[in-house]
Amino acid sequence: MNRILDVIASPADLKLLTDDELGILAGEIRAQIIATTSRTGGHVASSLGAVEIILAVHSLIDAPRDRFVFDVGHQAYAHKLVTGRRDRFETLRQKGGLSGFPRPDESPYDVHPSGHASDSLSVALGLAKAAQLRDSGEKVVALIGDAALAGGMAFEALNTIGQLQLPMVIILNDNEMSISRNVGALVRHLGAIRSSAEYRWARDHSQEKLEESGPFGRAMVQFGRSAKESIKQFVVPDSMLFESLGIICTPPIDGHDIPALKDILRTALAADGPVLVHTVTKKGAGYKPAEDDPERFHGVGPFDIATGASAHRIAAPPKYMDVFGQALMREARVDEHIVAITAAMRSGTGLEGFAREFPDRFIDVGIAEENAVAMAAGLAIGGCKPVVAIYSTFLQRAIDQMAVDCALPDCNVVFAIDRAGVVGEDGRTHQGLYDLSYCRMIPGMRVLAPSNEAELVNALHTALRLGGPVAVRYPRGAGLGVPLPDDPSRLPVGKGTVVREGEDCAVLAFGDRVAPAAEAAEALQTEGISVRVVDMRWAKPLDEEAIAAAARTRLVVTVENGILSGGAGEGVLEVLAQQGADVAAVTLAIPDRTVPHGKPADLLADLGLDAKGIAAAIREHLAG
Amino acid sequence: MNRILDVIASPADLKLLTDDELGILAGEIRAQIIATTSRTGGHVASSLGAVEIILAVHSLIDAPRDRFVFDVGHQAYAHKLVTGRRDRFETLRQKGGLSGFPRPDESPYDVHPSGHASDSLSVALGLAKAAQLRDSGEKVVALIGDAALAGGMAFEALNTIGQLQLPMVIILNDNEMSISRNVGALVRHLGAIRSSAEYRWARDHSQEKLEESGPFGRAMVQFGRSAKESIKQFVVPDSMLFESLGIICTPPIDGHDIPALKDILRTALAADGPVLVHTVTKKGAGYKPAEDDPERFHGVGPFDIATGASAHRIAAPPKYMDVFGQALMREARVDEHIVAITAAMRSGTGLEGFAREFPDRFIDVGIAEENAVAMAAGLAIGGCKPVVAIYSTFLQRAIDQMAVDCALPDCNVVFAIDRAGVVGEDGRTHQGLYDLSYCRMIPGMRVLAPSNEAELVNALHTALRLGGPVAVRYPRGAGLGVPLPDDPSRLPVGKGTVVREGEDCAVLAFGDRVAPAAEAAEALQTEGISVRVVDMRWAKPLDEEAIAAAARTRLVVTVENGILSGGAGEGVLEVLAQQGADVAAVTLAIPDRTVPHGKPADLLADLGLDAKGIAAAIREHLAG
Repeated sequence: MNRILDVIASPADLKLLTDDELGILAGEIRAQIIATTSRTGGHVASSLGAVEIILAVHSLIDAPRDRFVFDVGHQAYAHKLVTGRRDRFETLRQKGGLSGFPRPDESPYDVHPSGHASDSLSVALGLAKAAQLRDSGEKVVALIGDAALAGGMAFEALNTIGQLQLPMVIILNDNEMSISRNVGALVRHLGAIRSSAEYRWARDHSQEKLEESGPFGRAMVQFGRSAKESIKQFVVPDSMLFESLGIICTPPIDGHDIPALKDILRTALAADGPVLVHTVTKKGAGYKPAEDDPERFHGVGPFDIATGASAHRIAAPPKYMDVFGQALMREARVDEHIVAITAAMRSGTGLEGFAREFPDRFIDVGIAEENAVAMAAGLAIGGCKPVVAIYSTFLQRAIDQMAVDCALPDCNVVFAIDRAGVVGEDGRTHQGLYDLSYCRMIPGMRVLAPSNEAELVNALHTALRLGGPVAVRYPRGAGLGVPLPDDPSRLPVGKGTVVREGEDCAVLAFGDRVAPAAEAAEALQTEGISVRVVDMRWAKPLDEEAIAAAARTRLVVTVENGILSGGAGEGVLEVLAQQGADVAAVTLAIPDRTVPHGKPADLLADLGLDAKGIAAAIREHLAG
Repeated sequence: MNRILDVIASPADLKLLTDDELGILAGEIRAQIIATTSRTGGHVASSLGAVEIILAVHSLIDAPRDRFVFDVGHQAYAHKLVTGRRDRFETLRQKGGLSGFPRPDESPYDVHPSGHASDSLSVALGLAKAAQLRDSGEKVVALIGDAALAGGMAFEALNTIGQLQLPMVIILNDNEMSISRNVGALVRHLGAIRSSAEYRWARDHSQEKLEESGPFGRAMVQFGRSAKESIKQFVVPDSMLFESLGIICTPPIDGHDIPALKDILRTALAADGPVLVHTVTKKGAGYKPAEDDPERFHGVGPFDIATGASAHRIAAPPKYMDVFGQALMREARVDEHIVAITAAMRSGTGLEGFAREFPDRFIDVGIAEENAVAMAAGLAIGGCKPVVAIYSTFLQRAIDQMAVDCALPDCNVVFAIDRAGVVGEDGRTHQGLYDLSYCRMIPGMRVLAPSNEAELVNALHTALRLGGPVAVRYPRGAGLGVPLPDDPSRLPVGKGTVVREGEDCAVLAFGDRVAPAAEAAEALQTEGISVRVVDMRWAKPLDEEAIAAAARTRLVVTVENGILSGGAGEGVLEVLAQQGADVAAVTLAIPDRTVPHGKPADLLADLGLDAKGIAAAIREHLAG
């Protein structure tokens, strides 16, 4: 394979390529991304959409000295391929292999651990300020999508960027994706810009313009103040939003047109203040199945390259998120006050069906978790019953709103915390490690951790009837295949249920760790060790009777899929101390470190949180 | 005293008053606010600035059926005075008395527990959506200041408000305060609007216009769509920021002109979509000392009415925040990479001196904690040494950024967490209860809890030299009066120091609870109980040797000024369990509830966290 890609050792090599060669390289990168992700799964559509932007930037800056910051970072595959990681690209998202996101511990070209949306502008601003203070001459470029730009912290950053007026380039990757989902006025604003006459003109005429070294070209290549002014002439009147914050904004340009991108970026990089370069791209560009269904190809498992069809999978039990979505629809049919809120994760949280059946009672606020949670407080005060479905890792953005806006006034808000615990291939930024801790610390919050999908149905049913704030946390992926209740039952608050009796030791298990705990008990039975397993159901309030009973065995073991500090296990220790219990106790949880990417089962095994690890811990402590 | 105020039993009574009478009432309310706060202290300047807006709104809506949501809420004193709380107003901010902020548990007219900035728009949006779904006809009005409008979650809400197009009125209380502080491009944008010709015209001619029932008046009083259109005619071109989000925005009007306010609000309330009413007010309006120094009168202690001078106080030891500010300046003089960041709390965090001495190395991002923290990550990556100084309660807004942006890449960011623990008169929304828990749960984060102001100097010195993320948490108010070190020392990581030896019991004390623990030990000595007291210094990592030594006494007691769940005490229990210790343990901390307003010493005594409470706990558990 005589690929240009194979001779790109670092981004510096890109500077030696002609625009035509860069175009060929873009095609090779696309083919590589499709080939690899068809086996590994991954973020296909956004990565395909950003190939030319990444090549254009790297052909103009000197990374890693200059800083290229990615927002979210799942569009960075092309960046990985041209920064010395081509040979390892096949290991993408596999345990021990390349991360699916930029990671500074993986490469000096990865500035920052991207993963949570909307943070790139703040990070880039900090870098620009550091460059100024240290007079380092480092250039700073941030790449942010239209959806992430609507996040509050991106606006906060724009506000400061507009004030400090430090040189930095913000590339808006406007992939016209968000607008179809109708998630906010900002994307409509961007749509208006795109459809403006100026944009149509720019799009239709960019080729000619470049051939003439037209307005985007040489005439604009002046430095400092004048460059800024010359860009300003091309400002589309509609882009007043950014302009009103003091940030020069280019008209929309074709984000797949390498010469046009290089031309405008060269000028933007020479400006003495912040410039927003508005590029329009196509999600999934260059791969028909992804272009046709970018939503499915946002994050996708292995697929067939020819058809785009997902690789055959063994029929699995239904996913937790789908069980949640179905259960919520059922509840909503009998309680007209139920309103569902999501933050840009309509399908990811299993709410597609709900949104179709109850369009008026479904709100997608976009990537805006703070607004989602505080708006839920308003809905509850107004007499509705809001259910906020957000992944554990993203709900970290709204802990203050959970505490102050919802829990303090005892608002009846249900938090459906999806992807709780280890999530797997997305890795460190996405693991849902903290929700048990941050929910438990909030006064008045009650926390349910269902142990299987039937328990989830009952937990949701219960949460909707309790009054006050209630969190229901459940894992990513498939349930256990247990039958779902025809008639959901209301779980008594703060009461666990004994899954298996035993006298030597009692395992107090939370959520998805109940099943491996039972499996461990089964294994130890054959060794003559009698282990009680309690499905605690509630991480808060804790079942004090179950804890007292556990203290009458020789060893109390807690096990949970979450961080140790502040988790349910420490809560159990607290209850034991209050009860004056005199018993050995072991808290199995995730220690004080982050968890890398890999298959969840492998990661949990490494952490000693699978059946084998639980059994080993019991054996060791009963012996010791 | 023949006051109108004395016959206002509820806001409904305001409807019976003429505009002139409302004007007289405004004066009476001002006098009452000044008289009361001169004794109690409070948020004087903003409350004086919002009197006419509050009267105008309440004279047009039907609260509590209609919803009047306050942002932050420290401007709501006039609201309290006209909603049946006049007789209790003298108890403002006193234990058991009126809260200084809206509190639903205090009055049905208080929609939501205001206290953290920028949340009002989300809450109001939720209320507007609930009103639509329930077809209740409830009107929704939110009052937000220019500083709070720059917070990210306010932008997130505007984005959704622009999309959903539900009827609601957003009153922007633009008090021209923020602009003087130069905290962001948005306020500059507002400044441009204010200085526009249109505004000058509106201001100069509003009286005549009203007399003629001019454009703001009858001509605009049409309903539905047409009302929206008629407002639109008055849109100032500069206000494109809001317009681009689909929110109709009025030109700036004088926020102290009751007839003008009523006229435009009446129209805005009749619109069928969201309307932003831009009012310009004067902070401290009507009280010369507050008008002259609104910053000091933002939140102020008791003062002399005639002069505005602060009431005489006994000479106190220096405040923690001032010790921090001085120590940081000293460090910054020898390390040019140190950069200080604050989120709208320049003086509140003791950074005035730093800002003057190092203007280039000081950044005030405004009310934008998320941006502050993520920007610090960028600065650290870029080779600077950022110190982010934010109150414990407001840092709750940036927990995700602490974890993902700073701790995950092991950025060398120092978090100076001011107002940690019980803060007192500001009450439930402002207590710094959670920082020990949310800092401890973040992998890689180290947490220092200095026990006095000298320890704070050493803690900061240490934190700046550790690498990686470090939090230093210290309380509001005055230190203990101990001498400050001439030459700060570097504290060994994870090592406490024994303050007092003893054998019967060991108190492992954190931060400002070390002194009362020592006092308790002193008292118990006279009863023949020998108590060891350890200043643990570090809430993370914990001193495992000190804990093991403590376990060799008869009772381990932990004491901290923070929430129990996930706090340092639970961390100690975890270490004891890991050590297989067989000892009784008691964790003294704040239980699972919020803490109301009152004097910190009184509140801590109620919580059993003062010397008396600690001694009582030890006595009880050693006896038991």
